[in-house]
Amino acid sequence: MQFSPLWLRSFSETLPESVETPLDVARAELAHFPEIKDTLILDPALGESFMYADGTIRGGETGVLYGAYQRIFAHLLHGELVPGTQSPDFSLRMLNCWDNLDGSVERGYAGRSIFFESGRLSYDPARIRMLGRLMASVGLNVICINNVNVLFEAQRLMEDLLPEVAALAALLRPFGVRLMLSADFALPLRHGVSTADPLAPEVLAFWQTTCDRIWEAIPDFAGFVVKADSEHRPGPFTYGRTHADGANMLADAVRAHGGVIVWRAFVYNCMQDWRDTKTDRPKAALDTYLPLDGAFRDNVILQVKHGPFDFQVREPISPTLLRMAHTRLAVEFQLTQEYTGHQKDIYAMPELFLEVFDALQCAPGSIPAVAAVANFGRDHCLTGHPFAALNFFAYGVFAWKKCNQPEDVTEGYLRLAYPELSFEQRDVLRELLMHSRTVYEHYTAPLGLCWMVVPGLHYGPSPDGYEYQAWGTYHRADRNAVGIDRTGSGTGYLLQYPEDIQKQYASPETCPDNLLLFFHRLPYTFVMKDGRTLIQRIFDDHFLGVKETEHMASALEKIGDALPADDRDLILSRMQLQLANSREWCDVINTFFHRLSGIDDLHGRTIYA
Amino acid sequence: MQFSPLWLRSFSETLPESVETPLDVARAELAHFPEIKDTLILDPALGESFMYADGTIRGGETGVLYGAYQRIFAHLLHGELVPGTQSPDFSLRMLNCWDNLDGSVERGYAGRSIFFESGRLSYDPARIRMLGRLMASVGLNVICINNVNVLFEAQRLMEDLLPEVAALAALLRPFGVRLMLSADFALPLRHGVSTADPLAPEVLAFWQTTCDRIWEAIPDFAGFVVKADSEHRPGPFTYGRTHADGANMLADAVRAHGGVIVWRAFVYNCMQDWRDTKTDRPKAALDTYLPLDGAFRDNVILQVKHGPFDFQVREPISPTLLRMAHTRLAVEFQLTQEYTGHQKDIYAMPELFLEVFDALQCAPGSIPAVAAVANFGRDHCLTGHPFAALNFFAYGVFAWKKCNQPEDVTEGYLRLAYPELSFEQRDVLRELLMHSRTVYEHYTAPLGLCWMVVPGLHYGPSPDGYEYQAWGTYHRADRNAVGIDRTGSGTGYLLQYPEDIQKQYASPETCPDNLLLFFHRLPYTFVMKDGRTLIQRIFDDHFLGVKETEHMASALEKIGDALPADDRDLILSRMQLQLANSREWCDVINTFFHRLSGIDDLHGRTIYA
Repeated sequence: MQFSPLWLRSFSETLPESVETPLDVARAELAHFPEIKDTLILDPALGESFMYADGTIRGGETGVLYGAYQRIFAHLLHGELVPGTQSPDFSLRMLNCWDNLDGSVERGYAGRSIFFESGRLSYDPARIRMLGRLMASVGLNVICINNVNVLFEAQRLMEDLLPEVAALAALLRPFGVRLMLSADFALPLRHGVSTADPLAPEVLAFWQTTCDRIWEAIPDFAGFVVKADSEHRPGPFTYGRTHADGANMLADAVRAHGGVIVWRAFVYNCMQDWRDTKTDRPKAALDTYLPLDGAFRDNVILQVKHGPFDFQVREPISPTLLRMAHTRLAVEFQLTQEYTGHQKDIYAMPELFLEVFDALQCAPGSIPAVAAVANFGRDHCLTGHPFAALNFFAYGVFAWKKCNQPEDVTEGYLRLAYPELSFEQRDVLRELLMHSRTVYEHYTAPLGLCWMVVPGLHYGPSPDGYEYQAWGTYHRADRNAVGIDRTGSGTGYLLQYPEDIQKQYASPETCPDNLLLFFHRLPYTFVMKDGRTLIQRIFDDHFLGVKETEHMASALEKIGDALPADDRDLILSRMQLQLANSREWCDVINTFFHRLSGIDDLHGRTIYA
Repeated sequence: MQFSPLWLRSFSETLPESVETPLDVARAELAHFPEIKDTLILDPALGESFMYADGTIRGGETGVLYGAYQRIFAHLLHGELVPGTQSPDFSLRMLNCWDNLDGSVERGYAGRSIFFESGRLSYDPARIRMLGRLMASVGLNVICINNVNVLFEAQRLMEDLLPEVAALAALLRPFGVRLMLSADFALPLRHGVSTADPLAPEVLAFWQTTCDRIWEAIPDFAGFVVKADSEHRPGPFTYGRTHADGANMLADAVRAHGGVIVWRAFVYNCMQDWRDTKTDRPKAALDTYLPLDGAFRDNVILQVKHGPFDFQVREPISPTLLRMAHTRLAVEFQLTQEYTGHQKDIYAMPELFLEVFDALQCAPGSIPAVAAVANFGRDHCLTGHPFAALNFFAYGVFAWKKCNQPEDVTEGYLRLAYPELSFEQRDVLRELLMHSRTVYEHYTAPLGLCWMVVPGLHYGPSPDGYEYQAWGTYHRADRNAVGIDRTGSGTGYLLQYPEDIQKQYASPETCPDNLLLFFHRLPYTFVMKDGRTLIQRIFDDHFLGVKETEHMASALEKIGDALPADDRDLILSRMQLQLANSREWCDVINTFFHRLSGIDDLHGRTIYA
C-alpha cells in the first residue's frame, strides 16, 4: 500500500496502469464490484453530468466516471442511486496545493510534498494515481500543484520543468483531473522582458508565447492561479495598474486555449501600523475589488476566501462574495488546518461548508467555482490525521452539490472509511466529528475574536501574539473591554454587507454569540443573551472546551480497538496532543483575561495567576 | 582590504605571511611604526607578562607580543607606556564563537561564519590572520571556534575534520591564540561506545584516545567547552551522574596534555510550566552547582553567565559567581547583541564590564578566566555595526586588566578606530557610546523586567511573548501589579546572595531602580525613590529613550561626514533602524501597561489604544 486509501478502503488498491480515459477508470472501478450490474454508456454531450435510469449510467466524458463512483458509493452505503440527471453545482472544483519546489508544503501538516523535492518534480506515480482516484470519486476536477506564493524557482514549472509537469498531467488525465499552475506575475522579467506592466504589449506577447508552449505540452491545461500584490508578491500595482488590468491581460493570453485565470482577492495591507485604528483589514478586499466589478473578462474568476480575514476558526461570510454582482467568483476554503489544529486536533468542516453555501444563497452574482487549499502530503496517512480526510471528502461532496447535509456526509465518510465499525460505534464517531468544530472553537478563540495564536506557527495560544504586529490582526483587549467595533460607529466594515445582515449584526443583542467580538467592542461585564457576563462566558467556554475534549478522548479510547491499527495509533496519539493543546488554550486565555479584567470565575475553577 | 581592520586602522593592512611566532608578529607590527625605537627581548620565563623599562620591552613568549601592541597603542594615543611589569588579570581570556558547520552563526548579526561553510572549514586565511591580530592586540589568548550547541555534525571537528582544524590553529598560533572546541558529551556514542556514562571506564578511555589524537595534531590545543544537560544537550544527568562526574572525567582525559575543561553552568529547566510559580529560573545554576563546590578537578573551569538569566539588558550579578568558594570560575559575557539590539542598535558594553568586575570583587573563590560570545562574522565590517567593535575591543582590554575605566577604554577605541575625528567630534561620540546602554534600557525593558522581546528573534518588543512559554521567563503583569517577588517572601532567589546584597535588594526602598522589578512585584501606583509612581516611571523612561535616540541620531548626522565612508553609511542607516526600533518599543510597552493599568500619562503624551 502506497498510502492510506482513505474513503476508498473498499476499493481494490490498484487500478490497471492501462487506464487512459475516465471511461476506462469508471469501468475498472465498477469491475471491483461485480455485484453491480449496471451498464456504462459514454455520451459526450453530457460533459460532466450523468443520467442514471434503468440500470444504465449514461455520462459525459467525465460524467461517466462521476456516475460510476456515485453508483459504487450508493452501493457501499446500502442505498440506491436515485434515478435522474446529476450535474455539478460548480464547474471548477479545485484543489490548491501550497507545495514548494524544494519539497516543503506551506502550512502543510501531512508531510512533505507529494509532487516536488529538491527543486524539481519527484513523485511516486502510484500515489498520484491514488490522488486522482480520490479526487474523481468526489468529483474534483482541477488541481493547482504549486504554492500561490511562487517560491524556490517554481517559475521553472513553466520553463524547463514543463515536460515534467506534462508527464504529471498525463497521470491525472484518466481521472478527469486537469492541472493548473500558480503564476508569478513578474515572470516576464525572468525572460528578458524589461517590464511586467500588464498594459505593455510585449508583456501580453510574452504570456501568449508562454501559454502556447504550455498548452502544446498539456492540451487540457486549465489555467493559472495568481496571487498578486499580496504579502509581498509582485503584481499590477507596481505599474500603477488595476487588478482588472492584470487579470485581463492574462485572461487574453489564455483565451485561445480555453484557459481561465483564477485571481486571488487576498489583498490587504500586511504592513499595517498597529497604532492605526482606522484601517481595518476585513474591509480590504471589497474596497479593492468593488470598483472593478464588471471590469473583468469572462474567463477571469476572482477567488475569495470564505471569510474576510484568513481562515480563522470563526469568521462571518466575506462581503466580497455578496457584493460582486458582475464578477465571476470562486469561494476558497482551507482544508489544511492552519489555524484549526494542524491536523493534530480534530476539526471537521462539513458544517462550515453548509454555513458558507447557505450564506451565499443571497449572492447576487455568479459563483462558478470553488477552491480549497489541500490538506495532504507524503505521510502514510495522506492527510496526517485520518479524520482530516473527512474534510477532503466532504469538500468534494459539497463542491458537487452544495445543499448537502453535514451529518449525512460525515456518516457516509465513516461508512466508506471504516466499514468495520458497528452502528453504535459509528454513531459515536459521527457525533464526535460533528461536534469537533464547536469544541475547537470553545477552547481556542473566544466569541469570534480570532488571531490569538502563536505568531508564525499558528498552533497554540498567544493572546497578544499578533497584537502589535503589522498584519492587521488586533483585538485591543484592555482592562475594561475587548474586541473591535466594526459597525457604522466603528471601522464601518459592517456597512459592506447587504442590509439584512447589517441589521442582524449591528447590535450586540442580535449579533450571533460566536461573532459577537468580531463586530463589537464590549466590556467584560456585558450581559449576553443567556444572562451570563462576557467574561464569565469566556471562562465557561474555555473550561467547557477542555471537558468536551476529554470526553472526545474517552470516546475514542473506547472505539479505538475497532479502528484499523494504523489509524488507531495515529488517532489516539494525536488525541493526546489535542488534550494538551486544549488545556493550554484554556489556561492561557483564561489567565490572560483574568489578568486584564481582575474578575474571578463565578464557579471558583482554577485560573492561574 | 579583506574586511574592516577596526581599531587597527593605523596599522599596515597585512603582515608578512612568514611570521611564525608571537615574537615575529611583535617585530613586524613594531616595524610599521619606525618612530618607535624600543628594543624587543624575549624572556620565556615571563610567560604572558612583559616588562617595560628604558626603551626595552622584555616579554615572555606571548608577553612580548602584548608588550609590543601596548607600546604601539600608547604611541598612537599620544601617551607613554608606563614602565614596570604587566600581567593579565585572567589567565584564560576567551572568545566563544557560536558558529555552526553549515556556516550559520547562532545569534550572529555580522554575517555568516568566518570559519565554516557547507559542513566543513572554509575561510580566507587573511581574515583569520586579521582576527588573530585583533585578538592579540587586546590580549585575548583562546578562541573556541564552534557553537556550544554542537550541531550540524560539528562532532566531525574532532573526527575527520581535525586536520583542517589543525591548519586553522597554525594560522592563529603566531598571534598567541590557542584553539578550543565545543565538545558533544555524547560523542562516544558516535564511535561504537555503548554509553556516555562518565563513570564507565570505556568512556574515559574513548576520550583519552580522542585527546591523544587532538593534541598530536594541535600541540597547543587549549581544551573543551561543554554545554551539558542544557536546553536539550546531552549530559551526565542521562546516566544519573553529577556535573562534577561529567566534567572531571573529561578533565582527566585532557590532563596529560595540559588541557582544561570549560564547563558551562547554564543549566535550568527549559520545559517549565508557566503555571508553576515556585520554580524560578534564576535559582537554577546555584541550586545545581553549590552542592558540587569543591568537587571539581583543578583543570575544570565552571563558566557562569554574568547574570542569572541569559544576557538580558539588565540583570543582577549571578550569585553562582559569588558563592562558589572552592571552584575555579569563568565569567561569561555576550558581545553578540542577542537581546541588546542585534548590532543594529548601539549598545556599548564597557560599563557592563566594569559593573560585573566590581561586583566580583567580593567573590570568595578563584576566577581565572573570562569568556565572551563573539560578535563577528563575514560582513565587510567584521562586527556588523562598526561601533559593535568597541565591545570586542573593550572586552579584551578588561580581560587583561579588570579595573579599567569605561570612558578611557571608549576614548582609546575611538582614537584608534577614527584618528580622523576632531577632539570635539570624538567627545560627542564618546558621550553617545557611553550613554547608549542606558538609552537602550530606557526604551526597552522597564526597571529590570527582562524578556519582553519577540520570542525566538529577540529583537523588538513583545511584552507577553515569553509569558506563557516554557523558558521560565515571566513578568506576570496584571491589571494591578507587575514583576516577580524573588525575596525570601517570594521565590527565595534573593537568599542565594551574600547578606549585604540581600539587605540592599530586599526592600523596594533600597533596591536599585534598574533592578526593582527583577526582585519585586509592585503595584503600578508604587511610589519610587524620586516620587514618581511605577507606571509613570515606565512611561517616562520609554518616552525618554526615544528622545535620547533621536538625540543620538542627530548627533551622528552631524559627525557623519567625518567618518570613513563605509562606516558612515552603515552607522547612519542602522541609526534609522534603531530610531524605528526605539519608537516601536516605547509605544508597545506603554500601550501594554496602559491597557493593563488604565492609568494615563501625567503629561498627556500619546499612548496608543
